[in-house]
Amino acid sequence: MLLRIDHVGIACRSLDAAIERYVSVFGLAVVSREVNEEQGVKEAMLATTGLATSGGTSYVQLLEPLGPDTPVGKFLERRGEGMHHVGYAVADVTAALAEIGGQGVRLIDSRPRHGSMGASIAFLHPGDLGGVLTELVQPRSDS
Amino acid sequence: MLLRIDHVGIACRSLDAAIERYVSVFGLAVVSREVNEEQGVKEAMLATTGLATSGGTSYVQLLEPLGPDTPVGKFLERRGEGMHHVGYAVADVTAALAEIGGQGVRLIDSRPRHGSMGASIAFLHPGDLGGVLTELVQPRSDS
Repeated sequence: MLLRIDHVGIACRSLDAAIERYVSVFGLAVVSREVNEEQGVKEAMLATTGLATSGGTSYVQLLEPLGPDTPVGKFLERRGEGMHHVGYAVADVTAALAEIGGQGVRLIDSRPRHGSMGASIAFLHPGDLGGVLTELVQPRSDS
Repeated sequence: MLLRIDHVGIACRSLDAAIERYVSVFGLAVVSREVNEEQGVKEAMLATTGLATSGGTSYVQLLEPLGPDTPVGKFLERRGEGMHHVGYAVADVTAALAEIGGQGVRLIDSRPRHGSMGASIAFLHPGDLGGVLTELVQPRSDS
């Protein structure tokens, strides 16, 4: 069901500073910058360099909260900067949600919503997955 | 330099329980179980299903500490179960360490050491990477 790790989401206080760091240290390329009001973040996707032509790219997602009362804002307050969630690529997020929900895992999103770069995404509850906030990502089909 | 996300390392109190959970919920396959005395963990690697033939597999690494005074044991005591680190695949871990160290990032391992499934690995200091404990992974060349 899980095709690969699509991305790790990293909470940061300054998106610009985090981008500068990840680009200079690792030579990653920024492939997308977006504001997602629904999720309360401004974010950037930085691509790793392997397998881009076969659709197997994985990303570093840097997340700056739009305010202290957003989920990422509260995460920063509680835990500081660091890994916030992991996203796995799936072929069909709706089918995956049904299958995973059937296993008794609580779904934060019972239906897919809009994610980065046109993906359909849904979050699963960390309390049922060893403390890991887990995202399913169905990439945009033409990407 | 970073080819893809090789794995996410997840700290758990019970390796057996965590494996059972990740296998039943996501249908992941356990491809390796090891005890790494040097790192103070017993661990399992669970493979995602995409791109295995092109060497682009990414893994969920489940980590149970061998004792409370190990790094993962201390992590569990401090933060509870959850994401512990992220590992990126690189072609040459020695070359990557030199380049990254040259950018002023503190190296936890200045020379590669033995990682899961015969890989050569090295850790980078989270204090210089936005709070993210980061591992470089040069997979075993015949894998």
